[in-house]
Amino acid sequence: MPCLFCRIASGEIPASKVYEDTDVLAFNDINPQAPLHVLIVPKRHIATTNDLTEADEALVGKLVRTAAAIAAQEGYGERGYRTVFNCNAEAGQTVFHVHLHLLAGRPLAWPPG
Amino acid sequence: MPCLFCRIASGEIPASKVYEDTDVLAFNDINPQAPLHVLIVPKRHIATTNDLTEADEALVGKLVRTAAAIAAQEGYGERGYRTVFNCNAEAGQTVFHVHLHLLAGRPLAWPPG
Repeated sequence: MPCLFCRIASGEIPASKVYEDTDVLAFNDINPQAPLHVLIVPKRHIATTNDLTEADEALVGKLVRTAAAIAAQEGYGERGYRTVFNCNAEAGQTVFHVHLHLLAGRPLAWPPG
Repeated sequence: MPCLFCRIASGEIPASKVYEDTDVLAFNDINPQAPLHVLIVPKRHIATTNDLTEADEALVGKLVRTAAAIAAQEGYGERGYRTVFNCNAEAGQTVFHVHLHLLAGRPLAWPPG
């Protein structure tokens, strides 16, 4: 299983887990860009947002709702937070397993990169 | 109907539409931050990502899949693109109707704001 996030989801590689259920895993980014920087991933391998099918739509929504729940739990729900999917090279995607970035805890500038 | 994006969705205020179906509307951002900068919104009013319920999960996934389809159609699917939800003040949310930013057409820096 060469995919880093598949290996984290299977427990083969440790991560600083924030949330886990049957479909979704959330863990702290190892290069945090904000006081709160969590990655929320589907446990099932999906390489990029280009590969999402209609059957994955609820799963994607669950990633976003998990991000919202973590932000709220950490006290940033009202202050605010940003969620980001990067797809392919020009967005800087480096791990080809869909992951939602959740950033919070500081004012987030515009444009978003 | 005071919400700007509800007024755009109803046709009361014009926008440069990119895609529309029964649930979703996509239109060009009036202050583009990249060669392609589209907003994808649910037609139904939802103020922030904090207000999403489990019943909205598929709709959120549809917003992301619509972004992917627009990126592909505009020739950026393989080069890459970034999708962003801003929630509340620290993320710079200014219109309180959930909207997904799609940015493509240039290298997008990190951190995302």
